[in-house]
Amino acid sequence: MAVNNVKGTRDIIGEEANAFNYIENLLKQICELFSYNEVRPPVMEYSELFVRGVGESSDVVRKEMYTFLDKAERSVTLRPEFTAGIMRLIIQNKLLSTSELPVKSYYVGPVFRYERPQLGRYRQFSQFGVEAVGNDSPEIDVETIVLAYTILSSLNLENVSISINTLGDDESRNNYKKALKEYFAKYLDQMCPDCHSRYELNPLRILDCKVPEDQKIVAGAPKMKDFLSDRAKERFNKVLSLLDAMEIPYQVDDTLVRGLDYYSETVYEFHYVSKTGNDYGAIGAGGHYGKLVKELGGPDAAGVGFSFGVDRLYSVLKDDGLLPKGLDNPVEIYIMPLGEMAKPLAMQAATALRVSGYRTDYCFEDVKLGNMFKRAERKGAKFAIIIGENEVNNNEVIIKNMQTTQQVSVPYEKLISSICQEMGDECCGGECQCHSKES
Amino acid sequence: MAVNNVKGTRDIIGEEANAFNYIENLLKQICELFSYNEVRPPVMEYSELFVRGVGESSDVVRKEMYTFLDKAERSVTLRPEFTAGIMRLIIQNKLLSTSELPVKSYYVGPVFRYERPQLGRYRQFSQFGVEAVGNDSPEIDVETIVLAYTILSSLNLENVSISINTLGDDESRNNYKKALKEYFAKYLDQMCPDCHSRYELNPLRILDCKVPEDQKIVAGAPKMKDFLSDRAKERFNKVLSLLDAMEIPYQVDDTLVRGLDYYSETVYEFHYVSKTGNDYGAIGAGGHYGKLVKELGGPDAAGVGFSFGVDRLYSVLKDDGLLPKGLDNPVEIYIMPLGEMAKPLAMQAATALRVSGYRTDYCFEDVKLGNMFKRAERKGAKFAIIIGENEVNNNEVIIKNMQTTQQVSVPYEKLISSICQEMGDECCGGECQCHSKES
Repeated sequence: MAVNNVKGTRDIIGEEANAFNYIENLLKQICELFSYNEVRPPVMEYSELFVRGVGESSDVVRKEMYTFLDKAERSVTLRPEFTAGIMRLIIQNKLLSTSELPVKSYYVGPVFRYERPQLGRYRQFSQFGVEAVGNDSPEIDVETIVLAYTILSSLNLENVSISINTLGDDESRNNYKKALKEYFAKYLDQMCPDCHSRYELNPLRILDCKVPEDQKIVAGAPKMKDFLSDRAKERFNKVLSLLDAMEIPYQVDDTLVRGLDYYSETVYEFHYVSKTGNDYGAIGAGGHYGKLVKELGGPDAAGVGFSFGVDRLYSVLKDDGLLPKGLDNPVEIYIMPLGEMAKPLAMQAATALRVSGYRTDYCFEDVKLGNMFKRAERKGAKFAIIIGENEVNNNEVIIKNMQTTQQVSVPYEKLISSICQEMGDECCGGECQCHSKES
Repeated sequence: MAVNNVKGTRDIIGEEANAFNYIENLLKQICELFSYNEVRPPVMEYSELFVRGVGESSDVVRKEMYTFLDKAERSVTLRPEFTAGIMRLIIQNKLLSTSELPVKSYYVGPVFRYERPQLGRYRQFSQFGVEAVGNDSPEIDVETIVLAYTILSSLNLENVSISINTLGDDESRNNYKKALKEYFAKYLDQMCPDCHSRYELNPLRILDCKVPEDQKIVAGAPKMKDFLSDRAKERFNKVLSLLDAMEIPYQVDDTLVRGLDYYSETVYEFHYVSKTGNDYGAIGAGGHYGKLVKELGGPDAAGVGFSFGVDRLYSVLKDDGLLPKGLDNPVEIYIMPLGEMAKPLAMQAATALRVSGYRTDYCFEDVKLGNMFKRAERKGAKFAIIIGENEVNNNEVIIKNMQTTQQVSVPYEKLISSICQEMGDECCGGECQCHSKES
């Protein structure tokens, strides 16, 4: 009996694996241009980090974490998101005192949430994001938005709209929470059990409730914008005017609060609607956090960051036909040894072509020539190299152009230069490395 | 109080993260040239898979797995290696009946083993490897060895020596196991408790015992080579003669058995000794497996594969000074806004340079010009862009060459073309994309 994959997980293979590489390489390249550096925290952290860093009122911590005791009986958790781990990494490696500020980091890798499996939602998925820590200016908030926008544009995602809001500073948010508590106190007995605990832990969370009855009550709640301090308003206006100067389109959405405890000041989301009108909702989001580093035991330093789901980006790009061509990885050259004695020379030819930069495959099965040609065709090969007893005796190879079906015999030592010429690659006769290509 | 990382795990940051990217990109590129395709199985599998696939007699399964119950009370395990998961992936996705054979896959990602933490050994580390499944020829064994050897050469690792051996076919191995049982029966009461269970589960494992007293007994044990069937000998000789034809250096080591239950026929290890004489031992290893796919519930198909530790490769390359230069990621251009009103234009300049392919950073703190220059120097910037009130009023920027200290004022719209020219990059005046560079 075969063992299947763990429920809610999936295998990424074939074209999809290549698409993930394409997306990851592109976003890494752009993060590097924006002078963000990759960091790789471990997959596991002590559970306490997420309780403190993500917030104990969050659904993620309350219901969705993969938590277990290690052999030393300490509670560890597979990360449900990256931000808490990156803050831990920055604090523990003392980056805020040994680097130029802000410390600008990016990450990409698997995260784990024990959610009910549903279409397009998996219990392991890949997250990408950035964190800039150690500067509290409106400019750094804007830089992260410009970075995300540049990445989405480079992925050919047009029709991205940015929703933005401010949660204000501590003073603004405390006043607002007080007003929310007063307002919701009147309706609490009509609201869902989750909202009861949200009321106690963080009344801002009630604004995210998905229960239709509760949403009607939420509609009449006080608005954040009426509780902003002058300082918070001024900071937010600077963010907006910088976005205007950068010609980044946005809409202010004063209902946007983001479902994590640590946000303050600027919060934002990226929405995407496909050319065919398919509304994907928020495909990425982020915001500013004033107190998170300190709450996790570090110095008093503000930060800002965003994250995207790579699986989500992949499905958006695929559905909208925006993935580049060639992700099905055709081979360029297919090697066909005819009989036992041809194999040493055939394997040498394969290695020589690969080292010269040509994606080359080899027929390992002793099938007839016609069958080998069918395989070469299915693999998309441009050229077949045929080596039989005659060729071995004469130290030659036959090069067959799969499209024109023309074939020529060339001495083995002319194999690389002939292929370079046939492919139209610049070549110096196989003597140097000039024909090697980057894949 | 700060929360630390989980014991035995570590953060990969700075130059090391860039080195990991360098290594991973290189090995992915070479696997693609050899026509292997990336697969990404999930990090978790049902525990049963590893018990069956890695073998219940192995130390990994008996002592080192991160195993826990999920919320549905099923036992899941963080993968301690990739091979079992890849076989599960190949079987479950029916790749052996829908693809050309052999199915050639590569992987890279984190694996988890609860080992005693020691220098250079971590409980989460990164593994890279390949699996070729669905062909039983000596050629495919050789292809994997050539692939690994090509990767090591491309990483500039010279002095790699390959140890190779055969464990024979089922007949050979059963006869050999019988002879080992007869031999060890006489000494069992003098041997360690682990060897007692190895004796029952798989006597080949006793040959790997690290206990000095036991090693003396092992020295006198029967040798595999005396139990090889003619068929197994012939197959192994073909492997060796193909390696000769490919000019791949090797030594036959008839004590090599590899510590996993599933190997049969060819097994091999890559050993590295640094230029300074530091012996790193085996840095990668692999072999042929005849029955693994069937034992895991799939069709009767043989496979071969190897794996390397990426962390291990990194430390070898670092110790031996073989990492490429530039992994400390200097910025190319540093933007210095002088005062509040300069910020919109300065941020526009930063974005324009980044989109044109220059790694650019921006001074987010309101410090004096001298301090900004010190920051630019520490970041390794080649050029500083200075924008003050005058520049904003005249829509200009100052470009300062950090090495020559020469500076020029140019109109804002000439910024990109001037930088291209200063950098010696081909340029058409910033009007097209020809100056964008791949990083």
